Amino acid sequence: MTSARSPTYSLQEIIERFGGEIAGDASVRVRCVGTLENAGPETIAFLANERYLRQLQTTRAAAVIVGRSAREGATAPRIVCDNPYVYFARVSALLNPPRSARPGIDPAAAAHPQARIDRSAEIGAYAVIACGAEVGPRTIVGPGTSLGENVRIGADCVLHAGVTVCSGCSVGDRVVVHPGVVIGADGFGIAFDEERWVKVPQIGRVRIGNDVEIGANTTIDRGAIDDTVIEEGVKLDNQIQIAHNVRIGAHTAIAACTGIAGSVHIGRFCRIGGGVGIAGHVTIADHVEISGQTAITKSIDSPGVYSGVYPFEANRDWRRNAAQLRRLSELAKRVAALEARIAELTRDRPPHD
Amino acid sequence: MTSARSPTYSLQEIIERFGGEIAGDASVRVRCVGTLENAGPETIAFLANERYLRQLQTTRAAAVIVGRSAREGATAPRIVCDNPYVYFARVSALLNPPRSARPGIDPAAAAHPQARIDRSAEIGAYAVIACGAEVGPRTIVGPGTSLGENVRIGADCVLHAGVTVCSGCSVGDRVVVHPGVVIGADGFGIAFDEERWVKVPQIGRVRIGNDVEIGANTTIDRGAIDDTVIEEGVKLDNQIQIAHNVRIGAHTAIAACTGIAGSVHIGRFCRIGGGVGIAGHVTIADHVEISGQTAITKSIDSPGVYSGVYPFEANRDWRRNAAQLRRLSELAKRVAALEARIAELTRDRPPHD
Amino acid sequence: MTSARSPTYSLQEIIERFGGEIAGDASVRVRCVGTLENAGPETIAFLANERYLRQLQTTRAAAVIVGRSAREGATAPRIVCDNPYVYFARVSALLNPPRSARPGIDPAAAAHPQARIDRSAEIGAYAVIACGAEVGPRTIVGPGTSLGENVRIGADCVLHAGVTVCSGCSVGDRVVVHPGVVIGADGFGIAFDEERWVKVPQIGRVRIGNDVEIGANTTIDRGAIDDTVIEEGVKLDNQIQIAHNVRIGAHTAIAACTGIAGSVHIGRFCRIGGGVGIAGHVTIADHVEISGQTAITKSIDSPGVYSGVYPFEANRDWRRNAAQLRRLSELAKRVAALEARIAELTRDRPPHD
Repeated sequence: MTSARSPTYSLQEIIERFGGEIAGDASVRVRCVGTLENAGPETIAFLANERYLRQLQTTRAAAVIVGRSAREGATAPRIVCDNPYVYFARVSALLNPPRSARPGIDPAAAAHPQARIDRSAEIGAYAVIACGAEVGPRTIVGPGTSLGENVRIGADCVLHAGVTVCSGCSVGDRVVVHPGVVIGADGFGIAFDEERWVKVPQIGRVRIGNDVEIGANTTIDRGAIDDTVIEEGVKLDNQIQIAHNVRIGAHTAIAACTGIAGSVHIGRFCRIGGGVGIAGHVTIADHVEISGQTAITKSIDSPGVYSGVYPFEANRDWRRNAAQLRRLSELAKRVAALEARIAELTRDRPPHD
Repeated sequence: MTSARSPTYSLQEIIERFGGEIAGDASVRVRCVGTLENAGPETIAFLANERYLRQLQTTRAAAVIVGRSAREGATAPRIVCDNPYVYFARVSALLNPPRSARPGIDPAAAAHPQARIDRSAEIGAYAVIACGAEVGPRTIVGPGTSLGENVRIGADCVLHAGVTVCSGCSVGDRVVVHPGVVIGADGFGIAFDEERWVKVPQIGRVRIGNDVEIGANTTIDRGAIDDTVIEEGVKLDNQIQIAHNVRIGAHTAIAACTGIAGSVHIGRFCRIGGGVGIAGHVTIADHVEISGQTAITKSIDSPGVYSGVYPFEANRDWRRNAAQLRRLSELAKRVAALEARIAELTRDRPPHD
Repeated sequence: MTSARSPTYSLQEIIERFGGEIAGDASVRVRCVGTLENAGPETIAFLANERYLRQLQTTRAAAVIVGRSAREGATAPRIVCDNPYVYFARVSALLNPPRSARPGIDPAAAAHPQARIDRSAEIGAYAVIACGAEVGPRTIVGPGTSLGENVRIGADCVLHAGVTVCSGCSVGDRVVVHPGVVIGADGFGIAFDEERWVKVPQIGRVRIGNDVEIGANTTIDRGAIDDTVIEEGVKLDNQIQIAHNVRIGAHTAIAACTGIAGSVHIGRFCRIGGGVGIAGHVTIADHVEISGQTAITKSIDSPGVYSGVYPFEANRDWRRNAAQLRRLSELAKRVAALEARIAELTRDRPPHD
């Protein structure tokens, strides 16, 4: 992806920006990033996981980024730092800068005369910007993206193609929204009355803080009455569902396919695996980690790691064990009965030793 | 969201429309709805769940809607009724009426000359209405929404932005379809032949009844041969997957992220939680309730509540217990052996009492 | 769906194309396909599952396709073959041919002057074809579909409405992509640094082989550094999530709502059920079958069927058993203690027989 004319940086120039120290030739220049396994010339790679240590010996990378413990594991010129993955992220952003907005509104976009679009913003073809909507400086609105009435998008955002933001919702600065995301559709508010469902109007909004990223085809529903809130620095993967009136605390990261039911409050700095389900009205403390595929059915008050995954097996073994799972309560009773019977039998006989 | 000029209603006017009785000042006027916790002046709130009873004392709402048992729990003027949540839904709809269609076809929409679009319908920018498609009176078709050939959309529907309805599918009256929904894509019909998959043409359609609501990014596949059918009054949350030839009975509600495999038949008035999976060809009776995250692997013949969720725990406890789950069948055998051994040991010794 | 003027074929003409033998009148002509249950005149149906055998007696189909064992089960004229479902797929494709591309670029499409679009390709209204993108012969690009810079789409593909293919990704020949699919959004690459997440640029691409089909609203992320790869003949159902750097082997089929985390490698000819979750960095051998709803948390080295689904029950029974699940490790210890105690008690007493 990096074209031949992208600039190069010496290791010396890199540590002047990002810190760390150099082992080996500080004048080596790099142009692009790569994996240890597939790196070519002019490439800088990294080692973040000790299990790839052996690849340090064989990599053709021009330079590598390593932690202090792997300092002597490589012969290539290397940058030694505390957190090689974070360091790599910064170097890669230097070598692969995001493209800037190309200021202007595509002639094939439909911007309402009462929309307020910053001059430095880029509005793509077939985008729709409704009455009262606001787009901040240097923000990119991709092709076919639709912003409803009175939507507010901050500065330096990227809304990719085919995003929908419904009326009244707001998005902070430096937010990245991937294709197919829907922000602010109605929450699932229905009341059952005499054999049919009555819709409860969903009149809250969605408010999204700064530095949030939202993965492809994720949906975030507007609040029923009060708002749904995604705090700053939250990172959401693809195909996540966030129901009405959820609040997600700052800097929490959630992996793909997780579903969060209505009125759930999640703390700050949580890490939630993929395919997790969280039941309605649950509250989760700060710094909670949840394993992928776990169903959270009640609140979690303390930091820590929580799990609840059925262990998979060869189908034959699973059938055998799962059948017994349906009799587990009975089995526990049988064990208690055995214990009572043994106690009775041995009432007069103390254990041998 | 409610602008300052929206109309107000007195409690007296409200009960004349919707029934119930008033405790306190019947002339109090309300303009908008709110939660007990965040209500301001001119706001009407409701209490549907006894656990928020304490908020009745502290709310700043001008009036509240309560059930008969909470009649004396508040000092604010209140409407007393049988089902406060349903009552609130009706009041909220009165105070927050949905916007009407703005009749006409946006100049930047592509409507085929042989499409039949009612004059009172609204067609948004960049919508595509293919040959033979039909849009009923007062229906709103959002920006970027695409209706395939011979699609039929009834009256008073709202199809939000970025919806796709594929050729031949039909949608009843008063149906709401949220952004990103795909109706009528091909079902997953493939046959395995000599080391490769052969596609089975999907020639059925999707038929959707009146008063259905479909959440954002939900997908409903067309039938393989016969049709996929969603009966009247069904309510579907976001990111639900409905495979080919499914039939969902009237007034069933399904929460987000549920996946329903091919040829499943679900009864009427069912309530299905979020993240449920239902295996192919399963039949589910009327009035069945399924807990969130449950995997339904066989048919359910009787009404009732069904569940199957792995209980989550602190990771350390889960590891310990899950390891034993793989030995559960063996454990059951060991208990049976113990029982036999004890019976043998005590053949001549009756229990003490 | 089949119009009255579609052509008819005699059974004789059909077996000349696809093999098999005829029992009964070979001159019978059929025009369309149907189910045994709902077939009308001029219809050919099939029996692939013995449990519908009884319907063979009552069907009004003009002809049926059956396996050798069901040869004598019907009175209607029939084609007898080895694999009736595959045979049916071929006959249905003959009677329901996919529509051809209508060559040309819709005037309401935005094709960059430096895009290379084959003359025989069809580009729908409001489609966006960016600089350097390439669309092959006879390929159909649906309305509102967006192809990023330097995307390459092969020959004879169908990209339905509202598909997004991000920059640099490539798609082979004869690939079908259903509405709402997102190919090449950023993977979920973030590194945690001093209380906030740092984005890791996602600079790999997605490469999709020939004869792949991708279901509605499925997402396939671009690689972090190297590419995400979907090999030839892979069939993906709706709402599947494929994370960065996944590789899926040729002719593997995956049912809806499955989530595959980063760097997973899946073998060839696998069959993966709906709602499956596969944890990051897992490797799965060729010819592995995984039951729906199973969480795969570690690599699978051998072909076979693997499962891990919590068996559902009436809620009351589930509550009782699930409570014991949390005490399973303790229960196993109690059984071991009982065994030790019994052994001790019977040290001098051999079993009766």
